[in-house]
Amino acid sequence: MTALYVQDVTLRDGMHAVRHRYTVEQARTIAAALDSAGVAAIEIAHGDGLSGSSITYGVGAHTDWEWIEAVTDAAVHAVPTTLLLPGIGTLHDLRQAHRLGIRSVRVATHCTEADIAAQHIAAARDLGMDVAGFLMMSHLAEPTELARQARLMESYGAQCVYVTDSGGRLTMDGVRDRVRAYREVLSPDTELGIHAHHNLALGVANTVVAVEHGVTRVDASLAGQGAGAGNCPLEAFVAVADLMGWEHGCDLFPLMDAADDLVRPLQDREVRVDRETLTLGYAGVYSSFLRHAEAAAERHGLDTRSILVEAGRRGMVGGQEDMITDIALDLVAHREA
Amino acid sequence: MTALYVQDVTLRDGMHAVRHRYTVEQARTIAAALDSAGVAAIEIAHGDGLSGSSITYGVGAHTDWEWIEAVTDAAVHAVPTTLLLPGIGTLHDLRQAHRLGIRSVRVATHCTEADIAAQHIAAARDLGMDVAGFLMMSHLAEPTELARQARLMESYGAQCVYVTDSGGRLTMDGVRDRVRAYREVLSPDTELGIHAHHNLALGVANTVVAVEHGVTRVDASLAGQGAGAGNCPLEAFVAVADLMGWEHGCDLFPLMDAADDLVRPLQDREVRVDRETLTLGYAGVYSSFLRHAEAAAERHGLDTRSILVEAGRRGMVGGQEDMITDIALDLVAHREA
Repeated sequence: MTALYVQDVTLRDGMHAVRHRYTVEQARTIAAALDSAGVAAIEIAHGDGLSGSSITYGVGAHTDWEWIEAVTDAAVHAVPTTLLLPGIGTLHDLRQAHRLGIRSVRVATHCTEADIAAQHIAAARDLGMDVAGFLMMSHLAEPTELARQARLMESYGAQCVYVTDSGGRLTMDGVRDRVRAYREVLSPDTELGIHAHHNLALGVANTVVAVEHGVTRVDASLAGQGAGAGNCPLEAFVAVADLMGWEHGCDLFPLMDAADDLVRPLQDREVRVDRETLTLGYAGVYSSFLRHAEAAAERHGLDTRSILVEAGRRGMVGGQEDMITDIALDLVAHREA
Repeated sequence: MTALYVQDVTLRDGMHAVRHRYTVEQARTIAAALDSAGVAAIEIAHGDGLSGSSITYGVGAHTDWEWIEAVTDAAVHAVPTTLLLPGIGTLHDLRQAHRLGIRSVRVATHCTEADIAAQHIAAARDLGMDVAGFLMMSHLAEPTELARQARLMESYGAQCVYVTDSGGRLTMDGVRDRVRAYREVLSPDTELGIHAHHNLALGVANTVVAVEHGVTRVDASLAGQGAGAGNCPLEAFVAVADLMGWEHGCDLFPLMDAADDLVRPLQDREVRVDRETLTLGYAGVYSSFLRHAEAAAERHGLDTRSILVEAGRRGMVGGQEDMITDIALDLVAHREA
């Protein structure tokens, strides 16, 4: 029997869908609904992780600490967990999150830069936390290289490593090959995880394929709330997992209600596969760039797709949000030339 | 090199998403956009096929003949095609469609009733048409039995047979097993087709898996416009097919534009995976029941899901739309008891 650990990301990756503007009350209400519907863990932080709130990434409506307290308050059964990107969040942030009750963390780096996570993973283990490595933009590394990076994460102390398809660019064969490569080099005691984005409308399918090849930790969010076309929609995944006969601990109908009644009404831009979000997947662009690219396109009278295609061509990675404006200005100059 | 025949169903299955109310002008505009973006075929008819217009299935804004003329007018390269369900449409309708320029038809039956298509398939072949068999609610027949029905369709003259997942209930393994079963019993000269619904958010994935196992004819629609959570979204499938290196003859960006600019604005109920449409897939219910079940739920103060779950339990199939009211009345009686 396949038994899954379902980690909800509505309140972290989903921050991108509300431009990091959840109120404390919204966070508490959503966390309570997730908790009573049976998810294993609830991730909470600014969309770009602890201390992501900034002009570049988007200013949060609250501090991470206020949001974390709302979730630790509401979570009775589920593990409150958070995300840390070394370079954005610090060891100080990690310790503060721990003081507020966070006992699980994912440390995220670009897929070829696992080494910058060494210190943060070790520190989290020293605090006694459950620690996972999160290799973002996984499509940009071939399976063997990605697995080498995963092995590094494991060597620093990560108890789980994720295939993190931040660009929503992986097709099912790409997920399968990466999960297989992980399984070949990681200890059998190390868990595998999948974090899918739905830009190519493959979020649920990619998650299913990952599970079929040995992944046990699954990211998903209510109504897919997340960057770009969103994450693997939790309620759809749970429906499929039920049909596949997998154990996951979640109740389908309450999740559907939470998705449609609590989360969808908060979206100020619909989270769906459309012209712009599909282009993210097609061009292999960091999903969090969506709102920034749309704003730049609006400001400069451009087609958002032209910015995204160019970002993909340049191989831009998370953290280079400021370069979106450069691309827009280049495109304007090109248009006027 | 995999070469695909992409058949658009925006103007046929998509009829359900607008309660069969496309204007002739809308049909012409959408057909022209599809044609210039390179789809192989454009299906046109009432959502329930020729002569589907009725109180039970929904009254069309136009006759099939008016819609067909709009499409044959607009289609320069694409093949105008239609759908016929024996028992709803007649041989007379088929001949009339042929007179108006339709040279391709799908004859659809419930997945265990291929035999009622014999006469219509033979008649279409006699007219010199391209003829495919369409085995609806394919999830309700095991692969071997479904393939036996496909073999019947072929024996009547069908040049292609579809796995038709009308309930959007199939997971990828279910699609794979059915396509393999077809390939085992059908002549190598007989093409295979896939018609997916997106109720479990697997529409694109199921289509990809089908192609990987030998399907060459693919149904899809702009923005997924179709019954339930819609069909395989055409623009998303084409993006994935590009990334897979498959030949399909379509231009991605114009399809995205047509989806977002021409089709989405027409939806009076969003076509997406939500509480009600996900339940269709979960319970294995004919996707066209959605709007009827929602209307009955509204009328009787019920949760649409309770009607759909009961419809699935009763194994209801296409053509039994009138029984939705019976279910609603039973549920009301049960509630009051």
